[in-house]
Amino acid sequence: MSADLQMMANAIRVLSMDAVQAANSGHPGMPMGMADVATVLYSKYLKYDASAPKWPDRDRFVLSAGHGSMLAYSTLYLSGYAKPTIDDIRNFRQLHSPCAGHPENTELEGVESTTGPLGQGLAMAVGMAMAERHLNGQFGDDLVDHRTWVIAGDGCLMEGINHEAIGLAGHLRLGRLIVLWDDNRITIDGSTDLSTSEDVAARYVATGWHVESCDGHDFADISRAIDAALADDRPSLIACRTLIGKGSPNKQGTSATHGSPLGADEIAATRAELGWVYPPFEVPADILDAWRAAGQRGSAARDEWQKRFESSSSKDEFARRLSGAVDGNGAIRSYLDNLLANPAKVATRKASEMALEALTAALPELVGGSADLTGSNNTKTKSTLAMTRDDYSGRYVYYGIREFGMAAAMNGMALHGGIIPYGGTFMVFSDYCRNAIRLSAIQHQRVVYVMTHDSIGLGEDGPTHQPVEHLVSLRAMPNLLVLRPCDAVETAECWALALDRTDGPSLLALSRQNLPQLRSEAAKNRCARGAYRLRAAAAPRKVVLVATGSEVELATKVADALEAQGQGADVVSMPSWELFDAQDAAYRADLLPPDALIVSIEAGVTLGWQRYTGANGINIGIDSFGASAPAEALYDYFGFSVENIVSKIHSKLMV
Amino acid sequence: MSADLQMMANAIRVLSMDAVQAANSGHPGMPMGMADVATVLYSKYLKYDASAPKWPDRDRFVLSAGHGSMLAYSTLYLSGYAKPTIDDIRNFRQLHSPCAGHPENTELEGVESTTGPLGQGLAMAVGMAMAERHLNGQFGDDLVDHRTWVIAGDGCLMEGINHEAIGLAGHLRLGRLIVLWDDNRITIDGSTDLSTSEDVAARYVATGWHVESCDGHDFADISRAIDAALADDRPSLIACRTLIGKGSPNKQGTSATHGSPLGADEIAATRAELGWVYPPFEVPADILDAWRAAGQRGSAARDEWQKRFESSSSKDEFARRLSGAVDGNGAIRSYLDNLLANPAKVATRKASEMALEALTAALPELVGGSADLTGSNNTKTKSTLAMTRDDYSGRYVYYGIREFGMAAAMNGMALHGGIIPYGGTFMVFSDYCRNAIRLSAIQHQRVVYVMTHDSIGLGEDGPTHQPVEHLVSLRAMPNLLVLRPCDAVETAECWALALDRTDGPSLLALSRQNLPQLRSEAAKNRCARGAYRLRAAAAPRKVVLVATGSEVELATKVADALEAQGQGADVVSMPSWELFDAQDAAYRADLLPPDALIVSIEAGVTLGWQRYTGANGINIGIDSFGASAPAEALYDYFGFSVENIVSKIHSKLMV
Repeated sequence: MSADLQMMANAIRVLSMDAVQAANSGHPGMPMGMADVATVLYSKYLKYDASAPKWPDRDRFVLSAGHGSMLAYSTLYLSGYAKPTIDDIRNFRQLHSPCAGHPENTELEGVESTTGPLGQGLAMAVGMAMAERHLNGQFGDDLVDHRTWVIAGDGCLMEGINHEAIGLAGHLRLGRLIVLWDDNRITIDGSTDLSTSEDVAARYVATGWHVESCDGHDFADISRAIDAALADDRPSLIACRTLIGKGSPNKQGTSATHGSPLGADEIAATRAELGWVYPPFEVPADILDAWRAAGQRGSAARDEWQKRFESSSSKDEFARRLSGAVDGNGAIRSYLDNLLANPAKVATRKASEMALEALTAALPELVGGSADLTGSNNTKTKSTLAMTRDDYSGRYVYYGIREFGMAAAMNGMALHGGIIPYGGTFMVFSDYCRNAIRLSAIQHQRVVYVMTHDSIGLGEDGPTHQPVEHLVSLRAMPNLLVLRPCDAVETAECWALALDRTDGPSLLALSRQNLPQLRSEAAKNRCARGAYRLRAAAAPRKVVLVATGSEVELATKVADALEAQGQGADVVSMPSWELFDAQDAAYRADLLPPDALIVSIEAGVTLGWQRYTGANGINIGIDSFGASAPAEALYDYFGFSVENIVSKIHSKLMV
Repeated sequence: MSADLQMMANAIRVLSMDAVQAANSGHPGMPMGMADVATVLYSKYLKYDASAPKWPDRDRFVLSAGHGSMLAYSTLYLSGYAKPTIDDIRNFRQLHSPCAGHPENTELEGVESTTGPLGQGLAMAVGMAMAERHLNGQFGDDLVDHRTWVIAGDGCLMEGINHEAIGLAGHLRLGRLIVLWDDNRITIDGSTDLSTSEDVAARYVATGWHVESCDGHDFADISRAIDAALADDRPSLIACRTLIGKGSPNKQGTSATHGSPLGADEIAATRAELGWVYPPFEVPADILDAWRAAGQRGSAARDEWQKRFESSSSKDEFARRLSGAVDGNGAIRSYLDNLLANPAKVATRKASEMALEALTAALPELVGGSADLTGSNNTKTKSTLAMTRDDYSGRYVYYGIREFGMAAAMNGMALHGGIIPYGGTFMVFSDYCRNAIRLSAIQHQRVVYVMTHDSIGLGEDGPTHQPVEHLVSLRAMPNLLVLRPCDAVETAECWALALDRTDGPSLLALSRQNLPQLRSEAAKNRCARGAYRLRAAAAPRKVVLVATGSEVELATKVADALEAQGQGADVVSMPSWELFDAQDAAYRADLLPPDALIVSIEAGVTLGWQRYTGANGINIGIDSFGASAPAEALYDYFGFSVENIVSKIHSKLMV
């Protein structure tokens, strides 16, 4: 068997080096170094069926060291997934090839997550492992009983998020998570000795993990280490001692193989070294047969699972959860009716909690949490009990002071399926998890970010805690829906929009301070169009006040002052730029007519507002960092007062 | 002595709880819990002179758990710093009080760094400790011989950046760094058991640290632990076992003391418990005298240092380094002359290296580095040898795969003084260190971020590695100067601007791909005005093409095509929005005249450009994530082609 395994592994090596050479771009070192480990994993341990990539009870595999993408593409092709084809691999890193530079979950069904930003693959795998145990807790072993595997490199382990991710995994004792560490002691700059002196194994043990090590080029030793990992109830790290670029006689073991093609000469030398006599992109039948057999290993298990599923009393609910079908607007209906009958003057973070009480009661797939700000983010509800190592069926995660780890874990849960994750922190700390938010957006995952304390309105905590540039910088991110509701009604509507959105993340920007309920009807979800006329001018319209979130109340007061002077002013609430931009031109022009003075009011930087107010409009905002003082004092100090705004409008109207 | 120490510590406790009560906002728990440790530190170990807060050889103290700001304000006031006064403390968290919600380095000389975003204080302290050893390596024990002390909480240790920071410190064996961990086992959500099961001490040992623990309320035991830390040549963590809110009889040891005032009743009970009979904001003379004596402990050492400094042969250079005085424009003069004589078609990341060769040779205070992308960021020069645990005098830091840790360490070096730090990573990973960039800006620190691979122009690595929203999201950050040069000349000019800027950070956005040299004169730094007319229209002007960085070349080609058809087109290069916005209206209107069609061209999101192009202009950009393909294919696919842009301009001109 070992000889076969060797040739199977060499197939990965050769496909990888040839594809990188053809693209004249890419990373051959990792796939060649980890080919032996991957071959053992795919031919003996990983539970999968290449003919059914979406089988719900499959093991999940995450290539956290995403630059080694050819390892993923090679194993998927060899084991018989419908995609990628050998032509796709031939077109590695070319426009429209699913074999992108880094693995993209939207391109290939066998790619469980988009990786490349180091550390996040492993951190998403933690979320997948949490999802598996959680759904196991809810549906039992018959339907949910799989593992999560990761291949990670030194970079994944050095990144800060690694600490957060393994801390969470160790605390939750996620024994079905196994990380295969490509311990090659090489980074881009050279030897790991240049930058680290850490005892990685000891750190993992200190964090609640089981650690093994093995010779990453000895098939039996790899199996021994994996067997030991399977037998331990802690999450496991297996240090696979490897040579980067293994097989390349003159370059292996050096950073030269990391991120560049080997070159024609070295490729020829490698073929000789490996005894590989076949041309590029050709795998001999016997080796391909062995791989295809590996790809079918799971089919019997899948048949049995399918039988259990068909006869399960939970069949419909399990299928519904996995399908991701929800009706957010329906789920808030009766809550909204009650809100209209009993208006609430509350902070929108509190309004979010009120909406969540209704939503979490109706939707068991909602799994919440907070990065140690539960009472501030208002993310916990009566329906969401704690998820612990003793009871994974709970629906609330105490993520600890780990914003980045939380966001990545939420991505992992969403990718796993069956869960809609939401989690809270202070909005200023969106900076800490920003790239994970970006990965939610790139991966088209329904993750809901509950970002409270969304402006200088948080008051005394001062500039380090006051977001000013965050709203626009988040709006700039493609495929992220940013929602900043102005009252309890809009907050509920925004929650419904976030849940009904199936192809990307949403971010709720919520106030610390109390806000009056401005909406007295909710027949339809008015936030759905991104902006709407909350109040029409009484006197002939001179001004349109466009505001978001906590500043909509201020806009209504400015309108009052203007109307009292006979100057008509519309008030437009604009909870979402992205949704408004998607409306037709007539709707947009009706709200923001060219013959009125358009005034934006938002407690954030003014950058970006010019596209709504035009060059002749007025932008009320804060283009500096905030300060430490009570919220009312800050609003006044930074010019968010009726007097100041009316005065600016008067000056402009008189020009 | 212990009795005195107890009353000195109680003064911190009472000032802290009273100030929080007066503000009706703040965090009494940490100052009360760590009062005993802080008293030992300030009265026995910390080398400082309250009458000379800027003494260069003072120990640095960083309150990483910045929410406990009253601990800092109390110790500064008690030990006799000119500021804060007792009235400042009385006005804790009020507008214009230097006693802000979290400590701000710009408000009080005794506050070495702005803290609050958890984990970063400790990470900045690592940079301070690096700066100390580096300057010691350059100037010797006579001038530089101090320590860096940190008080950190559980949050600081759970954050991902902690892993990066302590990994760097352990690797560099920064034995003069001592972290006093407030081991109170309480976070905002409750017991640390809710979210972590880590053996913190074992993790630190695994990372190359020395670890002690002590009873944080036993003065002798605190001293014993600190003495052990002083004797060890590794960085030290001292786990100080404390009761959060110590002294509050009914609330100590609970999260109730963390972030809320104790309330009048509990404050009275605490006074009784502590035997403190004085009214709020009154410290009896004997206790104040004991504190003031502690604040003078270092004056003899300072006198001796001053004598050594005055007689040192390095006096002038040391003073110059500490003053931060440089002439960036002067330092690039001869390099620029050479560049004009021998134009270079290079990537701007390469042009940055060329400029750095000249700058690092001229300016020994430049200390560079990269987060494991040295060869890609082009940050290393002949003058910058590695900084290692065996030779701290080196000027290049192999930061490892630790972007956030790098950025925070650079903040620490800049705060320490005597160093101008610069460091590189891929621009997309500005996300990983974004909040540290924000802290550079808030703290007014001259840190230079070298962000390469700044658009889809990086090609095959694909969307996870291609910044699209990053330029605008960084421009949105107050007090950050974003510079995107278009060729080798502009790159040198931007470097000069970054170095000559003394009150804030700069960020260079640099291309992976080669760019022609567009500038043929450099008599004055044209980038200094943010934008300038690179080429004036030949035919009567119809169009102004405004571009940045790698798209300026494309703009010149579009202009060629338009001119060939008789349509005059200016080309404006706009390396910096911030600098352009600071110009007078006449200059701005001259460059972007209202009677021309303004067309922005930038390989990033179009959000924000409307303020330069107006509603009737054209914005050429990319409002989605990128893709994996060669750069040329991507530029064409996303519409960055002469044909597409000319066609859009024609359509608009015909309307």
